[in-house]
Amino acid sequence: MSATASPALHWTLAERTKVMAPSAVREILKISQRADVISFAGGLPSPKTFPVEEFARACAKVLHDQSTAALQYSASEGMPSLRRMVAEALPWDVNPDRVLITTGSQQALDLIAKVFIDPGSRILVETPTYLGALQAFSPMQPVVDGVPAIGEDVDIEALKALRGTGRDAARYFYVLPNFQNPSGGMMSDANRSALADACQALELPIIEDNPYGELWFDQPPPAPISSRVTDGTVYMGSFSKVLAPGLRLGYIVAPDAVFPKLVQAKQAADLHTPSFNQLIVEEVIKDGFLDRHVPGIRALYKAQRDAMLEALREHMPEGVTWNTPNGGMFLWLRMPEGIDTSALFDTAVANGVAFVPGSAFYASRPDVRTMRLSFVTVPAERIRVGIAKLAAVIRQAQ
Amino acid sequence: MSATASPALHWTLAERTKVMAPSAVREILKISQRADVISFAGGLPSPKTFPVEEFARACAKVLHDQSTAALQYSASEGMPSLRRMVAEALPWDVNPDRVLITTGSQQALDLIAKVFIDPGSRILVETPTYLGALQAFSPMQPVVDGVPAIGEDVDIEALKALRGTGRDAARYFYVLPNFQNPSGGMMSDANRSALADACQALELPIIEDNPYGELWFDQPPPAPISSRVTDGTVYMGSFSKVLAPGLRLGYIVAPDAVFPKLVQAKQAADLHTPSFNQLIVEEVIKDGFLDRHVPGIRALYKAQRDAMLEALREHMPEGVTWNTPNGGMFLWLRMPEGIDTSALFDTAVANGVAFVPGSAFYASRPDVRTMRLSFVTVPAERIRVGIAKLAAVIRQAQ
Repeated sequence: MSATASPALHWTLAERTKVMAPSAVREILKISQRADVISFAGGLPSPKTFPVEEFARACAKVLHDQSTAALQYSASEGMPSLRRMVAEALPWDVNPDRVLITTGSQQALDLIAKVFIDPGSRILVETPTYLGALQAFSPMQPVVDGVPAIGEDVDIEALKALRGTGRDAARYFYVLPNFQNPSGGMMSDANRSALADACQALELPIIEDNPYGELWFDQPPPAPISSRVTDGTVYMGSFSKVLAPGLRLGYIVAPDAVFPKLVQAKQAADLHTPSFNQLIVEEVIKDGFLDRHVPGIRALYKAQRDAMLEALREHMPEGVTWNTPNGGMFLWLRMPEGIDTSALFDTAVANGVAFVPGSAFYASRPDVRTMRLSFVTVPAERIRVGIAKLAAVIRQAQ
Repeated sequence: MSATASPALHWTLAERTKVMAPSAVREILKISQRADVISFAGGLPSPKTFPVEEFARACAKVLHDQSTAALQYSASEGMPSLRRMVAEALPWDVNPDRVLITTGSQQALDLIAKVFIDPGSRILVETPTYLGALQAFSPMQPVVDGVPAIGEDVDIEALKALRGTGRDAARYFYVLPNFQNPSGGMMSDANRSALADACQALELPIIEDNPYGELWFDQPPPAPISSRVTDGTVYMGSFSKVLAPGLRLGYIVAPDAVFPKLVQAKQAADLHTPSFNQLIVEEVIKDGFLDRHVPGIRALYKAQRDAMLEALREHMPEGVTWNTPNGGMFLWLRMPEGIDTSALFDTAVANGVAFVPGSAFYASRPDVRTMRLSFVTVPAERIRVGIAKLAAVIRQAQ
């Protein structure tokens, strides 16, 4: 064989690659994985919550009882039995035929982008919003507008003003109502109803993303928007936060009008989600396992949130503010005027603590004084040490 | 909660959804899964070849030794150790840092489409070509031109004529040199060298897809095109045909000029391929398992190919022609003039046998006299019965 060292060939890349960029969060994760850094940056579930024994038993059973199904190609829609379980677990009347199993809920965002966004299409997101969603949407070249918040609620009047008409009509409004990534905020029951009404009145589809809904601390969140206006919404869920993210298992519930196109996009994207992973999760959850398992995650995360809140109260200088999330994984901090959290980052890491600067989470006009802290990855003792370090860095910057 | 039966909302879909369609093959698969149908339609590996015991052992070991890594989020590029194993197994000098693990090789096609295709971009494919590639490319709205074949080789002169210039320059040429899906054809050594040369002279990137290369019967295929012109090609491989498709594990080897963009597209598509699946496969293959395992697959598939060839010789009416694939999973039949295989399909199924009409595999101007037969899914005895049935249907149509 004549392996020739040829001159670099000319590759012409698609226009959309110009808007692709390495995820700020994932780059930050790399830096903050150093052993001497206490990292509040990652959104990594605590490995203590992974049901390792149950997975081991499920793997053995699935490979013993249904090895061919587990290892063979399967339907793009997902395994029928898992689709049924997903439908039955949701708190409204969901047709299992309208459940699509996805390779993590990140893939759901990718499929939604492909099916709804033309270059130049307007879409609406919350302010702030999930960075991974911005990354999934942007390659399809939309114009992204952020809808302002009033506290933890969506500003419905602002939404109406941003809806647009004709070619400028927004294709959808993407919302994360429960313990939002990044802010940890939760939309009220009244705001969800108002949003459901607005969705119909404005003919504005809603993409409702709910990876954290089960991780509530004191009381469950209000019912999903999708339960209030079922054919005006696409609903997304995930097993990453209640079982384990390493299996990459999520799902979409979509109305008749769009379901077939999402399936076709899924088929082209990866044929189907790994059969094996679907059957393992099915085996683990089939006897009500999540009802026994998730309360333990809630208790652990609540204790870690409390440790963080306590440390914040003890150490943070005056003028730093934060919320008290009622669930999920994240807490949202705001610095006093004059402090840009991006500028703090290097010093913080040098001092052994990491966070994500808030600006990554805005479609436009970032609030540079914000930062996201995860309270789930690091145990309580380390949370206290890390927050003290972070407070010292902030104090220095003042 | 006020669940309201609202009137169907107006959903505006992206233009690209117009070119999305259900996969003809997957629809045919559904029909042909009836127990009374002998199906040569599916490209399903024989479940006899799945190393079930090895997977069971690997699951137990991985969940015992490295449960956190298996169940946690991981890098978009893939697990470092698996990337190293992939690089080391390839027959040229591959940098592990240029290996990207994908969720099946179908995902590799999706990422390639996103990174290289603008609406209206020209791309080149073989005639015929893999249907799943056409499906992955088409949502990015390319103009697809088929490059004619001379026997099982690419017509290099025709390729030169189709290359195009300026805005019309083809972004890449997609080829499946080993035991192609659908034709079973294999490009000669000389043709690969000529293609490598043309790729450099024409500045035409090549996407080389090699899921079947290990499944050779009498002698291994010539070295990949990518081993001859390493920075002018993107190479794609898969574990689906040598281990099991249900894990969805494939990979890309890409040059520096495009690797980062493929990783960014991957990150947006599903964050990363399931950590668990990567570690299981790593555990199964790490001690040279494939060297012991794959010869058994080769022997089984060769015996089934022989059974099909023998049955074809015995039963097919005059004027029906076919090739003798030296590997892979598929055999390519051509009917006498006047027979359109799509028109045969319903009668064939009614008579208990299924195939895929060849027209699905053409970018344009299909040869309607062709059909694809898989010889790997159905055991030898059933192959003989099925081919007799198929011959009877063809005879009737004459």
